[in-house]
Amino acid sequence: MFRTHNCGELKITDINKKVTLSGWINIIRNKGSIIWIDLRDRYGITQLVLEEKTTDSSIFKKAKTLGREDVIKVKGTVSKRTSKNEKISTGEIEIVITELEILNSSKIPPFTIENDTDGGEELRMKYRYLDIRRPQIRENLILRHQVVSILREYLNKKDFIEIETPSLIKSTPEGARDFLVPSRMNPGKFYALPQSPQTLKQLLMIGGMDKYYQLVKCFRDEDLRADRAPEFTQIDCEMSFIEQQDIFNTFEPAIQQVFNVIKGVTLPKFPVYTYDEVMSKYGTDKPDLRFDMQIIDITEKVQKCNFKVFDNSEYIGAICVKNSASFTRKQIDIYTDFIKNPNLKGKGLVYIKYNEDDSIRSSIDKFILPEQFKNWFIDLEAKKGDLVFVIADKKQKAQKILGELRLKLASDLNLKDKNKFAPLWVIDFPLLEWNEEHQRFFASHHPFTSPKDEDIVKMTTDPANVKAKAYDLVMNGFEIAGGSLRIHKKDIQEKMFKIIGMDLKQAYDEFGFLINALGYGAPPHGGIAIGLARLCAILGGSEAIRDFIAFPKNNSGKDIMIDAPSLISSEQLKELNL
Amino acid sequence: MFRTHNCGELKITDINKKVTLSGWINIIRNKGSIIWIDLRDRYGITQLVLEEKTTDSSIFKKAKTLGREDVIKVKGTVSKRTSKNEKISTGEIEIVITELEILNSSKIPPFTIENDTDGGEELRMKYRYLDIRRPQIRENLILRHQVVSILREYLNKKDFIEIETPSLIKSTPEGARDFLVPSRMNPGKFYALPQSPQTLKQLLMIGGMDKYYQLVKCFRDEDLRADRAPEFTQIDCEMSFIEQQDIFNTFEPAIQQVFNVIKGVTLPKFPVYTYDEVMSKYGTDKPDLRFDMQIIDITEKVQKCNFKVFDNSEYIGAICVKNSASFTRKQIDIYTDFIKNPNLKGKGLVYIKYNEDDSIRSSIDKFILPEQFKNWFIDLEAKKGDLVFVIADKKQKAQKILGELRLKLASDLNLKDKNKFAPLWVIDFPLLEWNEEHQRFFASHHPFTSPKDEDIVKMTTDPANVKAKAYDLVMNGFEIAGGSLRIHKKDIQEKMFKIIGMDLKQAYDEFGFLINALGYGAPPHGGIAIGLARLCAILGGSEAIRDFIAFPKNNSGKDIMIDAPSLISSEQLKELNL
Repeated sequence: MFRTHNCGELKITDINKKVTLSGWINIIRNKGSIIWIDLRDRYGITQLVLEEKTTDSSIFKKAKTLGREDVIKVKGTVSKRTSKNEKISTGEIEIVITELEILNSSKIPPFTIENDTDGGEELRMKYRYLDIRRPQIRENLILRHQVVSILREYLNKKDFIEIETPSLIKSTPEGARDFLVPSRMNPGKFYALPQSPQTLKQLLMIGGMDKYYQLVKCFRDEDLRADRAPEFTQIDCEMSFIEQQDIFNTFEPAIQQVFNVIKGVTLPKFPVYTYDEVMSKYGTDKPDLRFDMQIIDITEKVQKCNFKVFDNSEYIGAICVKNSASFTRKQIDIYTDFIKNPNLKGKGLVYIKYNEDDSIRSSIDKFILPEQFKNWFIDLEAKKGDLVFVIADKKQKAQKILGELRLKLASDLNLKDKNKFAPLWVIDFPLLEWNEEHQRFFASHHPFTSPKDEDIVKMTTDPANVKAKAYDLVMNGFEIAGGSLRIHKKDIQEKMFKIIGMDLKQAYDEFGFLINALGYGAPPHGGIAIGLARLCAILGGSEAIRDFIAFPKNNSGKDIMIDAPSLISSEQLKELNL
Repeated sequence: MFRTHNCGELKITDINKKVTLSGWINIIRNKGSIIWIDLRDRYGITQLVLEEKTTDSSIFKKAKTLGREDVIKVKGTVSKRTSKNEKISTGEIEIVITELEILNSSKIPPFTIENDTDGGEELRMKYRYLDIRRPQIRENLILRHQVVSILREYLNKKDFIEIETPSLIKSTPEGARDFLVPSRMNPGKFYALPQSPQTLKQLLMIGGMDKYYQLVKCFRDEDLRADRAPEFTQIDCEMSFIEQQDIFNTFEPAIQQVFNVIKGVTLPKFPVYTYDEVMSKYGTDKPDLRFDMQIIDITEKVQKCNFKVFDNSEYIGAICVKNSASFTRKQIDIYTDFIKNPNLKGKGLVYIKYNEDDSIRSSIDKFILPEQFKNWFIDLEAKKGDLVFVIADKKQKAQKILGELRLKLASDLNLKDKNKFAPLWVIDFPLLEWNEEHQRFFASHHPFTSPKDEDIVKMTTDPANVKAKAYDLVMNGFEIAGGSLRIHKKDIQEKMFKIIGMDLKQAYDEFGFLINALGYGAPPHGGIAIGLARLCAILGGSEAIRDFIAFPKNNSGKDIMIDAPSLISSEQLKELNL
């Protein structure tokens, strides 16, 4: 037997017990006549002690040869520690060693196994198994397990059935790029890995399964950014005979429960915003509501104030930065450069400082009188000491710039409190998006999303203004879940495909299995998918989802630890007819 | 709101409640002045009633247009039923309808939505979403969910952490054929889909995660048989600081709990057999212990009895078929043909009938005296009325034939009781298997399996006789789980690769990440993987694992519902450099 206890559980009440422990040497302190070892496992750290005058000499000698990360098994007696360590759960005791077995030795690790490690990211990824020994990564993986456990238990209690859908499915256009898998048994043909089990879960609803969920691996062959992974896990759910509010009533408490159990936080009822509302107030469909700094439309107020640039603009919007009138010229230049960056292409940034002494300094104070500024301040709720930034441009572009500026300011001013959680539902997304390159509409969400009932008539007459029964759950500036009610009528589904440029033949070639299924008694249904790593990252107070994935890939889609993807043998290629 | 209750929950205590229900029309009986509808959902069936003289005429008229599988929403009052239906949970009540809304209509389904359906397998697979509406398939999927829930809960309580390993990994030789995924971002390189997360879970142990599990999709590109699927799910587990008995102590109660909760059965302690023992007694490493009929080695007893065929055979084995002396010549011929089939290549089958009147009839009674037969019967425990079959051949071949014959007889004699469960552990598998074609040893299990300590010395001197720390959990003739303790010492792992014909360079090219990891303090570890669909099939009393998979593929690896695999566009191929 390798252990009677783990390294995190022995307490003062265990004094004098004979115990066996196994684990890794975290630290070894050799003081000549006495050796202390911090023995580590997943559960904690226990101090071992060997004294030259009382320990068997062969054991003491063996202990002297030990090094960091060696794996040992020891027997000994639990004793009271003279100097307590209150930082660890076993800090009141130590083990006086009577037997020592070296189970395996370790080379010196390429970086220190501590939260504050000296290893760079590339090195830690190559030795990810050592990185996982660091308490932070270990706790992240355990957090993920806990999140999953809470959600599963919740869904099980609500009569959801976990059903696995296949991973080798059919490649379909629309959406992101598929990962493909050549079929050896069907030469020239390919499977695709699922981008999501969307159509399959709809078929389960048509099959009468009523409430489904699955923790499912999804795959997208997209160029990677820091927060994207080629494979990712979603908690995928679907329900029949429901309306949007039923989804909220089911999943809002689920998320609340996760935060309550993991963080001890009671989240309030999630506010509901329309897409139009968040776009105008925050310039994004994923607003971070941990701080205010709303975008205010001041177009009407500031036009005809004798400033041509404003008079000639479609839209003028502003944000009020609290207590920031003291920004230096240099600081303001940073934000001007920021809004001019190639992603945003802002033309210029107007600032207005409302100083504590009631004076006003602005980049446009040659054109605008103090009384006029003060009139604007009413709408902006700007007080003495505040700073106002103004953007004049096309409406959508200006809102986007102000939204990004708002986020940058919040970062710089430390308004993004890791321990604050600001959830909201965003609803009424547009059903369709016009694509200039392809000169056609694309589905904003996916082509199975239902239009709002009252907008069905507009599908042919005014597609750009059709709203969808789609919703996102947003928290701290990230989408943590998204979903929609689906089209359950065959004729509407056919119409939808037509609007996004598919003729009936193509639609049936690609999605015939689903369109046909809608003809056999499809119930009204809808669902949601929760991005697991993102939810964990928010709970863990991190923006890096990779820290919550056991074996993540890098930005080139490579696993540098196992060296994947890799070259393969010509025999393998031949078998696959490649 | 679509429903206040589901179709399985209303009881006599709900009388007079106003309720709203939604579901599918299972059966509609139109008796002219009265219409009964059986409304169905996942939870059950509720009877609806409409009477011409009391129901609003527009509703009654609408009801007359309804057909099977239409989806409706109704409001009405719960009433006591005049003639109870004790087969269903709602059999004491019916709903008197006051409102009726048709949510969606259905074409006439291509087969009846009943357990005893008129649809053939191909048709049901094409319309799998309709097949899932059949109670049997629905119950199978719910059973699978329950099994998973029980096992997860069990493992969570035992401090196991669920950790997801990647699905896009590296292709490695050894084992079955990989499914490959071309990498667009790394031209010419490929990912492989995991055949199992074997090496990754070992890295998690080296990473100190201690106890891991995962319900994980695995992929093998093999030619398919009825009980094989290209993708399948295993409950994959690994533990550190354990011995074989710790695995048994952890997973035996897990399986017992599943059978207890799902079947109400208390499984006894699982007997442990060595590989050598089951091979000699049952001719297979997956013995079905629901019935006896052991293979008895009668070589010593029957040689030198004046029958040349026996005297010249390496081995003579027999099975005693209880109460079957009355088999006709024709029946016996069937078994003779069976053992001569191309898979078994038996040379001949000797029968000995020990008749009720104490007489003996045998295919070799010209050579053997009744007294001699009776002497053999002692070892075979053959009584009057029994039939004995004898095979003389090379030992392994004879045992295999007798094992297969035993199974066929059990099927024909209805000895395979669906409601009986006979688990056992099989241990001490050979570490290596000689492959004639490649003229080298292959790992019997996989090359990470540890040899038994006492056999390490034989790895170079006598590899064929090295036993492994490998174990299978077998039930009713199927392997439901398999695992091993792993090699955790770097030098042993290098030796193992050498024995299976890999030089050090090749071993490091393919598995360097793991071999290196063993050098950084790998703990003793081992694990097990449970075949989920197989376990469910046994619990469900079926031999067809496909019935426990939501969307199974056929024997050509095709999903005929969604039409996968399929041809893909030349642009897609070009992007992938294929």
